[in-house]
Amino acid sequence: MSNPVSLLARASVRALSPYIPGEQPKMADIVKLNTNENPYPPTPSIRAALDALRVEDLRLYPDPGADALRRRIAVLHGHGCDIGNVLVANGSDEALRLAIDAFCEPDGSVGYVEPSYSLYPVLADIRGLAKRPLDFWPDLDWRVPADYSASVFLLTNPNAPTGHLFDKDAIRAFCETFPGVVVIDEAYADFAGVSCVDLALSLPNVLVCRTLSKSYSLAGLRLGWLVGDAGLIAALDAIRDSYNIDRIAQVVACAALDDPAWMQANVARIVASRGRLTDALRARGWTVADSATNFLWARPPAGGPDAQAVFRALREQAVIVRHWNAPRLRDFLRITVGTDTQCDRLLAALEF
Amino acid sequence: MSNPVSLLARASVRALSPYIPGEQPKMADIVKLNTNENPYPPTPSIRAALDALRVEDLRLYPDPGADALRRRIAVLHGHGCDIGNVLVANGSDEALRLAIDAFCEPDGSVGYVEPSYSLYPVLADIRGLAKRPLDFWPDLDWRVPADYSASVFLLTNPNAPTGHLFDKDAIRAFCETFPGVVVIDEAYADFAGVSCVDLALSLPNVLVCRTLSKSYSLAGLRLGWLVGDAGLIAALDAIRDSYNIDRIAQVVACAALDDPAWMQANVARIVASRGRLTDALRARGWTVADSATNFLWARPPAGGPDAQAVFRALREQAVIVRHWNAPRLRDFLRITVGTDTQCDRLLAALEF
Repeated sequence: MSNPVSLLARASVRALSPYIPGEQPKMADIVKLNTNENPYPPTPSIRAALDALRVEDLRLYPDPGADALRRRIAVLHGHGCDIGNVLVANGSDEALRLAIDAFCEPDGSVGYVEPSYSLYPVLADIRGLAKRPLDFWPDLDWRVPADYSASVFLLTNPNAPTGHLFDKDAIRAFCETFPGVVVIDEAYADFAGVSCVDLALSLPNVLVCRTLSKSYSLAGLRLGWLVGDAGLIAALDAIRDSYNIDRIAQVVACAALDDPAWMQANVARIVASRGRLTDALRARGWTVADSATNFLWARPPAGGPDAQAVFRALREQAVIVRHWNAPRLRDFLRITVGTDTQCDRLLAALEF
Repeated sequence: MSNPVSLLARASVRALSPYIPGEQPKMADIVKLNTNENPYPPTPSIRAALDALRVEDLRLYPDPGADALRRRIAVLHGHGCDIGNVLVANGSDEALRLAIDAFCEPDGSVGYVEPSYSLYPVLADIRGLAKRPLDFWPDLDWRVPADYSASVFLLTNPNAPTGHLFDKDAIRAFCETFPGVVVIDEAYADFAGVSCVDLALSLPNVLVCRTLSKSYSLAGLRLGWLVGDAGLIAALDAIRDSYNIDRIAQVVACAALDDPAWMQANVARIVASRGRLTDALRARGWTVADSATNFLWARPPAGGPDAQAVFRALREQAVIVRHWNAPRLRDFLRITVGTDTQCDRLLAALEF
């Protein structure tokens, strides 16, 4: 929306540069590799769950605790995880917002890796909180100044947009001495095969954020969660909207979690395609970071068209990737790993 | 959840008495008259919409603007309403929270009618904001001190839990001089046949909040919205989660809004039952406020069992109504108007 913000809004809302989600083009027959959606459909058992849903029950409020869903998530994680260690949210965006809201006083601060998810500084700006980015550019080696602190630290692992996986021992050592709350955003963890959920369940200041959007092919459902210390979860639970997960979403999410094999098969296919696309781009002279996710962070060969020019040329051929016209980021494209057919269309479109 | 809140939480979160939603009992064969759900099912066209939903599309993010849904809401309201005058939310709880978040600075304040929706003071407490209740007890006559002000004023009209409809001219006069933002919470307006949407669309500081939960029989869906000045809506839009309405909810909500006749027929039946139940209780010596909603605010006859005793006796007979053990409120019961059969079961259960 482009209407000017009312003068009745808070000062930090009036000053805000809102988060811009990746384009959701409405035209048909595009190769959409710009928002890290899964190219494969979610488990077909969702169809059966929707068929079994009694529409007349929608007149009733949902279970405010979403107990059936949280039980499945607790079982999924193991490590002694109980439903009191789980908070479900309307997408991981809500989970991240709640974490900042629960643990940052008005004079507090939000830390995060730079570069990482561009929503984080916006969440800080909404609340008028200080931002404490940790600059890991360009090698993404884990290095934290001795005097570093923040109320909440948001750590994307594997990282976006770079696809980099941080070392788990380094993360553990950081969490053990960090004075605030660490939220490890594991949106892409199923593609890495590594998780810090065990850290979250053993340390008093660590939460892991997960989502059904990527590996479970359910970006359209909006289902994320936080897992960690029961006292942290209790704080989030106290401030969330009581009925934040609707009846249909609870049922659909349970169906997805009941079919982990479907998700794992899709992840395996995407990991195979990721290797294939990485090799193909490197063979064309591209610089491609090793990816632990379902996307590549890639720079076109020097001497040819730059990233923005490639982005535009691809777009003209209905292949949509992500480009940020921002310092340092502007040399790269973030390319979602699609099906092999989609990757081949991307590679063909690069021959402009 | 009963786990103690982590000491890492904000002070106002640690001090919070969270909102307690009405009980959602899981036992069967109860007469559930405690959370103002509609006793009739939503439009059957929702079944067709779910059947037509392509599960494979759930792999894609929803339309972040929910344009198709907002267009329907704009048409519903008329008065020149444009989609830029509409913000959709994950239930009106999210809408109300966003309004406080957008328009109250940390040293701001939240005003509301006392008694009204018990979520309002909790929303203020979450942010550590000052509370400015306007005490209209016991007659609910509209009277505002000359020096009254607040950053946001939440006005439930018709009111809950009393069912009282405030005079629209008084509301208009209040809005025209009030220095902050007025949010008129019209969750029950379809049962009153009166709305202030025209005020919201003509004044720069007024929002109306609506929901599909009550008249549209969709409490399980979580779909609310705010309508009003485009600059107020732009402020809310800047701070909401980008994808706050999932794909399924967008489709189901559109189906519901496309069948207003279904909703209106249910409202007419409930209004008829409301009159019938009011008369029956008054004939038994109860004091029952005139209701413009789908519930009654009712006090048992003096000299007999008090409201809490009646609440317990009904519960033993599987008839669940709402009782607050709080000053002034404790003499009353809030009773959702069910089907005539449910109302008869309530009346029979009162003969304990």
